[in-house]
Amino acid sequence: MPTSAFEPPYYAVVFTSSRTDHDPEGYDRTAARLSALVRDIPGFLGEDFARSPGGLAISVAYFRDLAGIEEWRRHPEHLEAKRRGRERWYERYAIHIARVEHSHAYKRE
Amino acid sequence: MPTSAFEPPYYAVVFTSSRTDHDPEGYDRTAARLSALVRDIPGFLGEDFARSPGGLAISVAYFRDLAGIEEWRRHPEHLEAKRRGRERWYERYAIHIARVEHSHAYKRE
Repeated sequence: MPTSAFEPPYYAVVFTSSRTDHDPEGYDRTAARLSALVRDIPGFLGEDFARSPGGLAISVAYFRDLAGIEEWRRHPEHLEAKRRGRERWYERYAIHIARVEHSHAYKRE
Repeated sequence: MPTSAFEPPYYAVVFTSSRTDHDPEGYDRTAARLSALVRDIPGFLGEDFARSPGGLAISVAYFRDLAGIEEWRRHPEHLEAKRRGRERWYERYAIHIARVEHSHAYKRE
């Protein structure tokens, strides 16, 4: 179920990635841990995640402001996970930090 | 393979959706058609797509400016697809239109 739209302005951190086939258990464990930790960051609004089997993964984390993103960026466990990500888990990735100006949500009746 | 980062500023249109089980062939045909059409929009930079089996789909389309997004938003085939999307294909969706301020890409050596 997608996260709803929020009241702009807010920020979206779009992370797109392709994985190696190394250490999937370590990746899954770390991803679950980070997903729990980010909820404690002030201004964290929610996140969406999708992964095509054997293909691209996209995560989008929503924050009220850049201060929350910066706090998350410097979180020690997050920094360590990023280091391991480059070392083992990711073939490629891209990150886009963006200020949401318009949003809209639809839900079937 | 994820789309690379681009030189900011640019725009990201994040579309997250959950599907109904109606008319998957019509959905796939329309998605392929739109994916071809959007390439002709001036300022279109690229797109990323992922879908978890039976779950959330996320597409992110990147544009150089809001003018391209507006042109795409008003494209007749896109408008018609959105109408059918609400009528048949989507259980819920959310759209976030955001100005990218920072970006970064990594590729394994």
